[in-house]
Amino acid sequence: MEIVKEILSGNKRALARAITIVENEDLEGQKNKEQLLKEIYPYTGKAYIIGITGSPGAGKSSLVNKLTEHIRRLGLTVGILAVDPTSPFTGGALLGDRIRMQDHFLDPGVFIRSMGTRGSLGGLAKSTKDVVKVLDAFGMDIIIIETVGVGQSELDVMYAADSTVVVLTPGAGDVVQTLKAGIMEIADIFAVNKADMVGADKVVTQVEAMLDLKDDIKWRPPVVKVVSTSNQGLDSLYEAIEKHRKYLEKTGELDKVRKERALYEVAESAVHRVRAYLNHALESNEELVGLLEKVTQKTLSPDEAANTLLANIKFSDT
Amino acid sequence: MEIVKEILSGNKRALARAITIVENEDLEGQKNKEQLLKEIYPYTGKAYIIGITGSPGAGKSSLVNKLTEHIRRLGLTVGILAVDPTSPFTGGALLGDRIRMQDHFLDPGVFIRSMGTRGSLGGLAKSTKDVVKVLDAFGMDIIIIETVGVGQSELDVMYAADSTVVVLTPGAGDVVQTLKAGIMEIADIFAVNKADMVGADKVVTQVEAMLDLKDDIKWRPPVVKVVSTSNQGLDSLYEAIEKHRKYLEKTGELDKVRKERALYEVAESAVHRVRAYLNHALESNEELVGLLEKVTQKTLSPDEAANTLLANIKFSDT
Repeated sequence: MEIVKEILSGNKRALARAITIVENEDLEGQKNKEQLLKEIYPYTGKAYIIGITGSPGAGKSSLVNKLTEHIRRLGLTVGILAVDPTSPFTGGALLGDRIRMQDHFLDPGVFIRSMGTRGSLGGLAKSTKDVVKVLDAFGMDIIIIETVGVGQSELDVMYAADSTVVVLTPGAGDVVQTLKAGIMEIADIFAVNKADMVGADKVVTQVEAMLDLKDDIKWRPPVVKVVSTSNQGLDSLYEAIEKHRKYLEKTGELDKVRKERALYEVAESAVHRVRAYLNHALESNEELVGLLEKVTQKTLSPDEAANTLLANIKFSDT
Repeated sequence: MEIVKEILSGNKRALARAITIVENEDLEGQKNKEQLLKEIYPYTGKAYIIGITGSPGAGKSSLVNKLTEHIRRLGLTVGILAVDPTSPFTGGALLGDRIRMQDHFLDPGVFIRSMGTRGSLGGLAKSTKDVVKVLDAFGMDIIIIETVGVGQSELDVMYAADSTVVVLTPGAGDVVQTLKAGIMEIADIFAVNKADMVGADKVVTQVEAMLDLKDDIKWRPPVVKVVSTSNQGLDSLYEAIEKHRKYLEKTGELDKVRKERALYEVAESAVHRVRAYLNHALESNEELVGLLEKVTQKTLSPDEAANTLLANIKFSDT
């Protein structure tokens, strides 16, 4: 595809177009999307992927902004993928690109994209990973995925990251809430943001105490204090990420995890394809109406109907 | 199955056992689970399902507790399904059943079950719906699903509810956060909890202002003030739910939505089965190793591998 050549030659407009193709969930756009992903795939695997997550209000966006500035000063290029929940009440991303873009708009070494979580039922994690691949093939040295750290889909998104930073803030029971949301255990690094606020040291202590509970720990996540608004601690944070990266590389964990990730991706891609097929079939296939009628009348269970359905599907190898 | 007879005769221990069977995600347990779900399916559809969601700390658990007391006084039985995120740091549900159970332990008309979100990758919504079916077949008049209102999986869970209550609290930008999390639009009723706190009226105003923005509104969600700790407003909340139920019944929406839900369930069941099949196959099938090796070597994209995989799967109709 022409667009693939353009991406590989560093054309940012082509990058933006390619991401739009890849985000597309319409059935008609699938061929194009799969072709694009197929052609860029050999050029992926070079970028290092950082996940940044934390509860709403933890200041992730400004932290990502400042971290990006820091990484840029080191001469590396950065792709940012912000997974933002959207609401039909406002009609778009609340934490839009616009504010973020202002700081990096003129920098050719940064590319920012926001993705909504709405409408991508079950496909969010896949879409995110596909966009990461495009940024990777484009040649970004570092890719940052930023997401609200709540919910299973968001955890799935984080599975794409090589190093995951969980952002916490002082006060408001943030540690307990993050713990409840199940994201403590995905942290490779903890960043205590707004560390100039009262209670920051308490958060550090709480996290360290929790880490003490884990006995079979191979990599103990460092806890780094950051004040992103005044640019403090970003260097330490990036150092911690680099240290984690070196740990992964030295122990062979990075290769291992990336292999597991490829396996998981194959499975998810298959699942995604089945889902798309069914959504389409259930809307248009008249043979299915009888099956569904039985389910509605409670004479056939949804599982039985699903089995009948699957037994009669033949996927073509294209 | 013997257990189905026991459930239908109102045996609570059998109910607990049946839920355990239904929650089971192991491949070996699937036959048993599907059989159970198949046999109870004709007895479902009688319960009215209420979803309660809201951000962490909104006081959902105590609200559910008090609402349950209110419903019990009306002579109706209640099944509660609390979807709690868990963390391996603590080894179990943080908001455990134990505290909740104390209030209702001796009441034969109440059954409470907590479900963790961990480990049920992609299967949470399905598991939840399956447990709801068991509670429904058992004969519970009202089933309450309580979940932290954040993330796509949690939204999926709420899709099982006939009436969804979004719980908000004064202060801490709760309305904005809830909006960001994309759960405002799934509300059929808003409950402003902790309404004795400063700022409760402001929350009501904010929500009403947001509702004013929607012009094509058929059912305008009422906004009810509640103080669950001192048992205020629970009657009004339940009245609002009942009003919504009558609206759904009168307009034929309830039938329509339940039909759509059945269709969606068939699709999700199929997807779930494919996922289970693949997870199993990718671990044990040696033919797949070559395919995965190519993906790791970047000579085959995950999508291509998935297509090859699907083309060679033959699902049997059992």
